[in-house]
Amino acid sequence: MSIYLFTDFGSGDLYVGQVKAVLHQYAPSAHVVDLLHEAPAFNVKVGAHLLAALAERIPAPSVTLAVVDPGVGSAREPIMVLADGKWFVGPDNGLLSVVLARAQAARVFPITWRPETAAASFHGRDLFAPVAGMLASGDFDAAQPEQKTGLDVNLGGDDLAEVIYIDHYGNALTGLRAGSVERDARVVTGAMRIGYARVFSEVADGEVFWYENSLGLVEIAANSANAAAKLSLRVGQPVAVETG
Amino acid sequence: MSIYLFTDFGSGDLYVGQVKAVLHQYAPSAHVVDLLHEAPAFNVKVGAHLLAALAERIPAPSVTLAVVDPGVGSAREPIMVLADGKWFVGPDNGLLSVVLARAQAARVFPITWRPETAAASFHGRDLFAPVAGMLASGDFDAAQPEQKTGLDVNLGGDDLAEVIYIDHYGNALTGLRAGSVERDARVVTGAMRIGYARVFSEVADGEVFWYENSLGLVEIAANSANAAAKLSLRVGQPVAVETG
Amino acid sequence: MSIYLFTDFGSGDLYVGQVKAVLHQYAPSAHVVDLLHEAPAFNVKVGAHLLAALAERIPAPSVTLAVVDPGVGSAREPIMVLADGKWFVGPDNGLLSVVLARAQAARVFPITWRPETAAASFHGRDLFAPVAGMLASGDFDAAQPEQKTGLDVNLGGDDLAEVIYIDHYGNALTGLRAGSVERDARVVTGAMRIGYARVFSEVADGEVFWYENSLGLVEIAANSANAAAKLSLRVGQPVAVETG
Repeated sequence: MSIYLFTDFGSGDLYVGQVKAVLHQYAPSAHVVDLLHEAPAFNVKVGAHLLAALAERIPAPSVTLAVVDPGVGSAREPIMVLADGKWFVGPDNGLLSVVLARAQAARVFPITWRPETAAASFHGRDLFAPVAGMLASGDFDAAQPEQKTGLDVNLGGDDLAEVIYIDHYGNALTGLRAGSVERDARVVTGAMRIGYARVFSEVADGEVFWYENSLGLVEIAANSANAAAKLSLRVGQPVAVETG
Repeated sequence: MSIYLFTDFGSGDLYVGQVKAVLHQYAPSAHVVDLLHEAPAFNVKVGAHLLAALAERIPAPSVTLAVVDPGVGSAREPIMVLADGKWFVGPDNGLLSVVLARAQAARVFPITWRPETAAASFHGRDLFAPVAGMLASGDFDAAQPEQKTGLDVNLGGDDLAEVIYIDHYGNALTGLRAGSVERDARVVTGAMRIGYARVFSEVADGEVFWYENSLGLVEIAANSANAAAKLSLRVGQPVAVETG
Repeated sequence: MSIYLFTDFGSGDLYVGQVKAVLHQYAPSAHVVDLLHEAPAFNVKVGAHLLAALAERIPAPSVTLAVVDPGVGSAREPIMVLADGKWFVGPDNGLLSVVLARAQAARVFPITWRPETAAASFHGRDLFAPVAGMLASGDFDAAQPEQKTGLDVNLGGDDLAEVIYIDHYGNALTGLRAGSVERDARVVTGAMRIGYARVFSEVADGEVFWYENSLGLVEIAANSANAAAKLSLRVGQPVAVETG
């Protein structure tokens, strides 16, 4: 079973490798795929919406290790969510709650397994990675009796009218799902009103537009140019949809 | 068969993982190697020369997924190139043309396979990755009748007298192959005339020189220092060779 | 046997993929794990201390390819170190010496194998990767007669009272092992005296503290904020411990 990683650990930093060393010990034959390690640091809310959008592209069955965890070492609980045949392992701080709310069928389990020793600051390596590895290799008894009835922190499944991520091209992903946005609507952010185009090559070089991106989200982009720099966009910035 | 990735998707961004999720579905037993995801964004010309230099290090048989594709969603065609026993999958926008022009033996095929659904902005995930995965796993009938006689966009196999990449040390790779450059030649860029050294440790700390890099290209470097910052070098900047 | 990579090659740059292409040829069934490719460039001393801290998390048996090698192409020798059941392959420039000095049991071997052709600037790909691959696949006769009695460059096993790495959150790792530092001690750097906290969530948002990080090192951090930016910390900056 493949293991997918979604974290704010930094793709070039020294944390992901330590997690993978543990995963390979617990699940030697599993593929491990880095979905994203540049989730905005410390920002659980936008992380939860990014994860929910990416989760639709994750095959089932699978295990996803999801860690944006500024409260590591505090009292927040470790949990497993089984959503539409896909396992998600992470902290009960809201990060898994958008996935859960949007799932057709989902269950929540507390993680009661504990390592012999764990660094207070790195549950990703010492707690979540072993559990993800055990799930992926089938060594873990997931049918634990104490299934939880809900999450401690629940952000709900609604869209988030904010910029949730800015990619290295300078495209700004929002937490708005494009399926419910009319193509003649404008996306408004700050003083800018932005019109729709189907794809980059349909507008002039440097022109800003919004489109339905490959995750199904409203995204603000510019053709062969950096939209975020042009418009001074930042993660967490509000966006609105204006129709008529 | 191993799959090599060469893109401008950003090594830390959320695109590579989505591509790998698809590759693992189509070719579960293939090694997937990230050659480069920081190819200069939107710049097909320098990407084509970088890819051609790297391609000489790729073992055969293999499949390389190559995507620098600012025109994704427009009319440019998807193609496969078989060059000296190595498959290359990508857009017919010039990116594969330097590899093709320098190959001893090469053939070009149109990609006629189409996915049931594809995001207009992410053919790397929805079209090129499935094809690369099928090639790597042997599931794809490459001997298609409609072999193409050439490319729509052809940059040719000649050297490119420009900076084509600046690495994180600040070394500036050029599109000039060093085999044909005399060791007593100077490399000229802007107002600078730069002399040759065999290797970093042969010049003083901070000193700028050119050398034949590990890909066989003329590279402008400095010992334990950032040459690109010292000389304000940028991708696309012209370079010349001065002899005598 | 798994292969771990520790280099200053840059996680997004075009060097790691070339190394992996070679590793897969020599050890097709080995897992390859990127521990860190953002070791501070050209800085062997802090690299040696980072590697020693990470090495405690590497399982045995294993092979680690370690390259921070500003003197590549000069006379420094290639070596293999077997430390507590783990192989380390790299240059004899001090990089492996802290691992060696702290090992319970260790031996040093010269690398006498030479490739037919090698780029003077990329022994990581042309010399160290083949040797690491051969070790991992068991094809290499490690019991070479000419076991070395020591290293040419030896930094010793003592702590390093410097900032050795700054992660992407802005946390500053030091070369001080926290086990021997009293919890009521202050860590002093520049004009700042920094008190202890067990974990991030025990201090207020933005507050700076030191703690024992997940590698067992003294680390200067701030809760949900960038400590290095707040305190203008840099790799190589001296730190001291003040007690009483």
